[in-house]
Amino acid sequence: MKTLQVHLGERSYPIYIGRDLLSKAGTYCEERGITRKSRHLIVTDESVAPHYLERVQSSLAEAGYDAAVHIVPAGEGSKSLKVYEEVMTTAISSRLDRSSAVFALGGGVVGDLAGFVAASYMRGITFVQIPTTILAHDSSVGGKVAVNHPLAKNMIGAFHQPVMVLYDVDTLTTLPPREVSAGLAEMVKHGLILDRDFAYWCLEHADDLLALDADTLTYGLERGCAIKAEVVSSDERESGWRAVLNLGHTIGHAVEAVGGYGRFLHGEAIAIGMAGSAMLAEELGRSGLYDETVKMLQAIQLPVTLPGDVSVDEVMEAMQHDKKFSEGQMVFIVPEEIGRVSIVKDVPVTVVRSVVERLQKEGIKG
Amino acid sequence: MKTLQVHLGERSYPIYIGRDLLSKAGTYCEERGITRKSRHLIVTDESVAPHYLERVQSSLAEAGYDAAVHIVPAGEGSKSLKVYEEVMTTAISSRLDRSSAVFALGGGVVGDLAGFVAASYMRGITFVQIPTTILAHDSSVGGKVAVNHPLAKNMIGAFHQPVMVLYDVDTLTTLPPREVSAGLAEMVKHGLILDRDFAYWCLEHADDLLALDADTLTYGLERGCAIKAEVVSSDERESGWRAVLNLGHTIGHAVEAVGGYGRFLHGEAIAIGMAGSAMLAEELGRSGLYDETVKMLQAIQLPVTLPGDVSVDEVMEAMQHDKKFSEGQMVFIVPEEIGRVSIVKDVPVTVVRSVVERLQKEGIKG
Repeated sequence: MKTLQVHLGERSYPIYIGRDLLSKAGTYCEERGITRKSRHLIVTDESVAPHYLERVQSSLAEAGYDAAVHIVPAGEGSKSLKVYEEVMTTAISSRLDRSSAVFALGGGVVGDLAGFVAASYMRGITFVQIPTTILAHDSSVGGKVAVNHPLAKNMIGAFHQPVMVLYDVDTLTTLPPREVSAGLAEMVKHGLILDRDFAYWCLEHADDLLALDADTLTYGLERGCAIKAEVVSSDERESGWRAVLNLGHTIGHAVEAVGGYGRFLHGEAIAIGMAGSAMLAEELGRSGLYDETVKMLQAIQLPVTLPGDVSVDEVMEAMQHDKKFSEGQMVFIVPEEIGRVSIVKDVPVTVVRSVVERLQKEGIKG
Repeated sequence: MKTLQVHLGERSYPIYIGRDLLSKAGTYCEERGITRKSRHLIVTDESVAPHYLERVQSSLAEAGYDAAVHIVPAGEGSKSLKVYEEVMTTAISSRLDRSSAVFALGGGVVGDLAGFVAASYMRGITFVQIPTTILAHDSSVGGKVAVNHPLAKNMIGAFHQPVMVLYDVDTLTTLPPREVSAGLAEMVKHGLILDRDFAYWCLEHADDLLALDADTLTYGLERGCAIKAEVVSSDERESGWRAVLNLGHTIGHAVEAVGGYGRFLHGEAIAIGMAGSAMLAEELGRSGLYDETVKMLQAIQLPVTLPGDVSVDEVMEAMQHDKKFSEGQMVFIVPEEIGRVSIVKDVPVTVVRSVVERLQKEGIKG
């Protein structure tokens, strides 16, 4: 078992990564000082519950904790204000109080939804992340929680740090292959942003990662979390440098939105977005990046082009709503080389459009 | 014009109190560093808009600011997730970005609603309070923002400090008399909690306050805001001492809930609650407080008893959902003398019930 510390002053917290952690959830709660006097709430989804809910419940119960459960439908659709209100209703009916904790047992959707509930229930209560996807190695670090608005993704949310992240790698074995690849997209992203060696390590170990080899995965997750934690520690509320974590996300979020948040998995959309960022880098005169980036993404079986039936106009329109569209200028995270990026403000919309068009042409060509 | 500073480290902000401040809104925005490059959003309600919206809009426009407007129905009903989502839709459609500000022009309902929008739009943007009620002298200081859940009041919210409060006392002249009294309830509360002299000053100047005499009101608001700011500065997130501000609120919120958030104004309900707290103090052996408290509340024409048709059972049931109900124990703010209170944990529910019953008997008797 590995322990990684996220340094955020009085909001610092540990990430535990290893095997068979679910059955020790109660012990970790005790270690982190969660009270037994209040009721707690486990939020999970219909896909995760049959596999892991009972294990977490038993562990909490054995340690003397009383936790209600709210199960949401699987998928991005649950990151809505409607489902958020339903979870709030359960929290109130279960008489959660200011000392209660909300446990997010699941992937990024459950983490974001339950996290925003924890952030806003009685103006903020304790939050525990128990991620069950690879993608969640990214979303469970950094305290960004949110639900979607029909007009744009993650528009409604907060910064709310968990008191701990319990990352049981055994839960990853039940992931469907497409979600494995999509989750690894964020891992590769962390390499592309800040760690050239790690990016090439991901490329070399792509097959072992896809096969969910426990040791390879533990190292990859630990390194991915560590890179993210390092960036977050230096800029918790994304007033500057933290924005580099959004590599591929401006185009990616737009692609997700146009696909109705169902057609593309988040990791797939940002893989397309990262290919786009590499193209953009070339447009800005930094050559050689596109081929390397695409090779890395394809090694973990991710899409790197925009399907022909997706409307470029709609992607451009969706991008205007993005949070990265600040003060009338378009902000992009652009690679300088593998393992290094910069924040480029005021990228002309015409250049972005030509990149989106090329993303589609490459698909038709290839 | 008086300026009061709320001391909260990097979240410190000024409260400007005086006449004709609405027409200088643009100037104050510039002083506080609000950008002209982004669009902003004014949230107000149907009662306030006809009187003051244009004045604020013109002032912002003259200073070069571009602000969209969202007008909600007047009343507590607008503190719902439904209206919250509607305001979010306007914010997104108006292309607010991370540098944008949300202006709350109105009373406590508009402030709480718009504040929670500002707290959660893109995970938190700039917030400006422009209160137009006496009650808002309380709600606009301290950063507590929230909407209601059908099961309980203020359950969904955040701590989000404004960058400034613009308190134009000229706006108070259009308040209906019942709202004047209800607003003064929080002013008296600040005296009862922390400042014996101010409590008796309110009693002595009750008629001038009810008549909205500008100088008397300016002093009262300034002193009320100052007391609140002092408490908030010492405990921003209500981990301890700040709870004293909830004097009368445990019973008061329950009374409001049972009245369907329409029958009693907030100030009226907490006046009943404060009378109840004084009774509770007597139950706990502190005599003489009840008569003094009731005299002060009645001087500003507030109710101090529970109407005979309100169900005591329903009030007790509503109280169980209150945030002050922590870890299975009932927490109450209890007066020790006029101008001093203490936080009493673990008040037996039977004692609370006898207080609620007596609040009703006093009404039938009187």
